[in-house]
Amino acid sequence: MDFERKRREVEVGLEEENVDYLILTPGSNLSYLSGVDIELGERQFYLILSPDEEPFFFLNELMEEEVREESDIDRFEVWKDSENPVEELKELLDRDASKVLVEDMMPAMFTQELREIFSDADFGLASSLMENIRINKGEDEKERLRDSAKVVNKVIKDIRQNESSFIGKTEDELAEFIESKMKEYGGKEPSFGTIAASGPNGAKPHYTHGEKKIESGEPVVLDFGCYKNHYPSDQTRTLVLGGQPSEKFKEVHEVVRKAQQEAVEKVEPGVKAREVDEAARKVIRDAGYGEQFIHRTGHGVGLDVHEPPYINSENDKKLEEGMVFSVEPGIYIKGEFGVRIEDLVIVTEDGCERLNKTERGWN
Amino acid sequence: MDFERKRREVEVGLEEENVDYLILTPGSNLSYLSGVDIELGERQFYLILSPDEEPFFFLNELMEEEVREESDIDRFEVWKDSENPVEELKELLDRDASKVLVEDMMPAMFTQELREIFSDADFGLASSLMENIRINKGEDEKERLRDSAKVVNKVIKDIRQNESSFIGKTEDELAEFIESKMKEYGGKEPSFGTIAASGPNGAKPHYTHGEKKIESGEPVVLDFGCYKNHYPSDQTRTLVLGGQPSEKFKEVHEVVRKAQQEAVEKVEPGVKAREVDEAARKVIRDAGYGEQFIHRTGHGVGLDVHEPPYINSENDKKLEEGMVFSVEPGIYIKGEFGVRIEDLVIVTEDGCERLNKTERGWN
Repeated sequence: MDFERKRREVEVGLEEENVDYLILTPGSNLSYLSGVDIELGERQFYLILSPDEEPFFFLNELMEEEVREESDIDRFEVWKDSENPVEELKELLDRDASKVLVEDMMPAMFTQELREIFSDADFGLASSLMENIRINKGEDEKERLRDSAKVVNKVIKDIRQNESSFIGKTEDELAEFIESKMKEYGGKEPSFGTIAASGPNGAKPHYTHGEKKIESGEPVVLDFGCYKNHYPSDQTRTLVLGGQPSEKFKEVHEVVRKAQQEAVEKVEPGVKAREVDEAARKVIRDAGYGEQFIHRTGHGVGLDVHEPPYINSENDKKLEEGMVFSVEPGIYIKGEFGVRIEDLVIVTEDGCERLNKTERGWN
Repeated sequence: MDFERKRREVEVGLEEENVDYLILTPGSNLSYLSGVDIELGERQFYLILSPDEEPFFFLNELMEEEVREESDIDRFEVWKDSENPVEELKELLDRDASKVLVEDMMPAMFTQELREIFSDADFGLASSLMENIRINKGEDEKERLRDSAKVVNKVIKDIRQNESSFIGKTEDELAEFIESKMKEYGGKEPSFGTIAASGPNGAKPHYTHGEKKIESGEPVVLDFGCYKNHYPSDQTRTLVLGGQPSEKFKEVHEVVRKAQQEAVEKVEPGVKAREVDEAARKVIRDAGYGEQFIHRTGHGVGLDVHEPPYINSENDKKLEEGMVFSVEPGIYIKGEFGVRIEDLVIVTEDGCERLNKTERGWN
């Protein structure tokens, strides 16, 4: 990965916007600029960039060795447990800074300290700069996203091949099957809570899985993904694993399938994000289920499994080559079932490339 | 769990400190006061308490159903994806508030919005109020911590019983054994990254596990825990799984064991946290390894696996009955090995109760 090019882009952005410091805590922005993938902890751990200084890590000595192994950045400013990190930071930074951007996910316990250090500065969010840089994926990133998508594509095929074996099993067991298969195919941890939601549970969009047994004829919403080489996959199919579903379900599934197809076909450079949303929403509205499509059509995917561009009814952003996002309309019939179908797409010169190409039908 | 009593304690604290609002994002404080255990997401999700209003959840409609199932709180203010949550919040809150406490872990993307809503308010951290309430565990909490500790105690016994089978296996395989056993004994997910660090890897305090094979005579630092009923376990043993270790290791192990024992024996109400730290540190310093004990002696454990009281050289806090924390001195010989021994203790009327009682020797 070409971290140095990415850092140069950021430094140019800082200069243009008169930002004195960009201060990142562990997370995808920090990883994007340094290669360091580490969990946010309770100790002050910052990657600090400024227009005229060499970027550096500010971290506890306990982390130094591991971070050096992964880091594309050489400058380390190290503090010890016996020291006060705020006092150490005051020594390192120009306290007259007038504009500071902080990581969007930086916890208040750290921003409160930074506001004490930079008492006169305006504070803003790192995303205001980073989003525009990260939204267009390089070839290295696209390749990793394709690779990660292959893992979930294989798992969906495995489920279809063994479908009748899951009837009478619990959602938990199906989720465990999914997660162990993702591992087997080279995935690291799940990129979000695996969803295996059967029958009425499928109508709860944030339900994951539980002890409920999967019955014959019951639809199951299967929404899962994993990280591979730091990049996530994310895909959804709604399947009936045995027996015959209701006529109502078949009708609703067909509506979602058509909505998803129309939205994917709408994708090309120059089209606005909200037009893709509208393409899906129109199909569902026209079929009389507008009120049951209660979420946006999609979200960008990169180092984060949810990132810009968001595909919703408000977003005027024009699509560009290299953007990557999900297209995942759904209909949720409370107390009965849910249907969602999701693929990731990369915007190409004249349309898009789907990363998830397995069958989209319910059987 | 008696959530209402806990909320009343908080409301009294808000009144005493002239705080207008306590605003919590998902995390242990929110869970402590409502029973809702949910992951921090990208959508505004707050539990809001004030001295003179009924506490309420502010959340996206997508979450409502699941949260209601777990929640001990009835009032829900719901926003939709088609609405702007900041505008909705402005309607609900008194914007003239002068003092607002926010969750320590609240991301900057949310605090920036709250600072826009309460443009004249002083901001502080929720911990300034919550820590003192949470630091003394109720009987219900102690019982859950004991129950969680039992899981890891059993797993350590299993490792000792099968020790020779791990020689020649990788650290990853040992970690997988540990995690599957924790599940088998009723644990939910690990409470932190399982550590199975052999040989020189044991000298890196934040190393977890990797592809390195465990050799005969090599020490392995085993530090792991899991959640059970929302409460974590955390314990460390340093074992040699087969063969004979070096004389140097045996000596160092004995020093750490003695340091840990002295520190545990120091614990009783009225003793300062730093005196417990010093009890361990003195043994290690006297043995000539002071520079190799590079972390604090312990951390509190409750809903969070790391929380106050911190047992370090600075903390003047006096121990009280009902506090729970780890006692875990260590010595790290770079390039060779590490030794750490850790038990959780509950402060009792006249000493402490250890939650981890398995043997502490290396063989």
